[in-house]
Amino acid sequence: RSGEMAKLTQLIDNEVLRAYATYTTIVLLKMMLMSLITAYFRITRKAFVNPEDTASFGKGESAKKYLRTDPDVERVRRGHLNDLENIVPFLGIGLLYALSGPELYTALLHFRIFAGARIAHTFAYLIPLPQPSRGLSWAVGYAVTMSMAYKVLTTALYL
Amino acid sequence: RSGEMAKLTQLIDNEVLRAYATYTTIVLLKMMLMSLITAYFRITRKAFVNPEDTASFGKGESAKKYLRTDPDVERVRRGHLNDLENIVPFLGIGLLYALSGPELYTALLHFRIFAGARIAHTFAYLIPLPQPSRGLSWAVGYAVTMSMAYKVLTTALYL
Amino acid sequence: RSGEMAKLTQLIDNEVLRAYATYTTIVLLKMMLMSLITAYFRITRKAFVNPEDTASFGKGESAKKYLRTDPDVERVRRGHLNDLENIVPFLGIGLLYALSGPELYTALLHFRIFAGARIAHTFAYLIPLPQPSRGLSWAVGYAVTMSMAYKVLTTALYL
Repeated sequence: RSGEMAKLTQLIDNEVLRAYATYTTIVLLKMMLMSLITAYFRITRKAFVNPEDTASFGKGESAKKYLRTDPDVERVRRGHLNDLENIVPFLGIGLLYALSGPELYTALLHFRIFAGARIAHTFAYLIPLPQPSRGLSWAVGYAVTMSMAYKVLTTALYL
Repeated sequence: RSGEMAKLTQLIDNEVLRAYATYTTIVLLKMMLMSLITAYFRITRKAFVNPEDTASFGKGESAKKYLRTDPDVERVRRGHLNDLENIVPFLGIGLLYALSGPELYTALLHFRIFAGARIAHTFAYLIPLPQPSRGLSWAVGYAVTMSMAYKVLTTALYL
Repeated sequence: RSGEMAKLTQLIDNEVLRAYATYTTIVLLKMMLMSLITAYFRITRKAFVNPEDTASFGKGESAKKYLRTDPDVERVRRGHLNDLENIVPFLGIGLLYALSGPELYTALLHFRIFAGARIAHTFAYLIPLPQPSRGLSWAVGYAVTMSMAYKVLTTALYL
């Protein structure tokens, strides 16, 4: 048993996998932050979608008026969905890339640029910054994931 | 070949990874169930979004009236999206946590509470239960994921 | 150090894991393609959602008219969300399945059918093909994921 455990913890002792674990956790925590920002805007803008969420504002019409969309809430939600669309591919392709035996330096470069691009994307979306800020930060993260996918397919291809 | 296979199946012989595999599969199956519930409400409420889905109801205006939103369908869809937003972080952070060498007892505690919280969240959303049922069940799952992320970062941090 | 690397790259030398890596990367790249198709339709249909995206069309009312929804854009977005809802379970359950020691032939069958079904689903959604094309392709991918989940739970169950 303890021999097995040792083998498994060796996985996490590998630097590339540790880097993957670090940056994946960072971007997933950043994505989770979007839920809190959505909740913050829903409460401060009083803009809810579920009737049961407005029950504390009273009954009938007085509560019903808070069942509405708000531009700030919708903006955060779009940022959140964009995170899902881009971080899910990073999660899967990044793990396979980390297992494909890349150089530590190259792997760190990929992970750091991806995390930086997604953090920049969030600022560009939420402030919002004028385009092409958001478009460019999205494209950088996309390109990093494509580059890792290329390495995975050239290393592991088995159709 | 058989030597390699043996090594790999040892991964799944590790109790923490088996627990991760079990609870991850359970929450992903629960998330997949949301698709079936959406389809059930779309059909029983006759509320579709794609014109080709209403073709069996006839042509022209008679079919067009079924291209509409329904509160029950939208509710399940919100629950499904909330699952995606919360189960994706669990998928990634949970795997890294399982590889970071936690105690079996502590790991089981995390996985069980997360799965329980997400199942409770679904009931709270779909019945629906009065708040703060849904909010609390969401927060418990969120806190479990944060706790696992903390363990991953303190064990594996490599920036 | 080099001993650890060898062990890790052996993971990717395993045929089942290589097949998982290949088909997972293919379906994730396919999902990422949806972002490009959405951007293509947003630009050609001039249908945007963020005010800062229409700034290049001028100020005031002349730009505001491009803040609108377009049926083609919405269709691609629904296809993208359906990918997320179905490829995330494949990502997680597929990895655990690959680690549960399946026969190579059986694993390849699962991965190939899933990838084929999701590609068929995209064509059925975007062309669009008459039903039940989209429904069937969705159901095939769903069934493959359920079959892998069954193998994971019967191999690894640890509650």
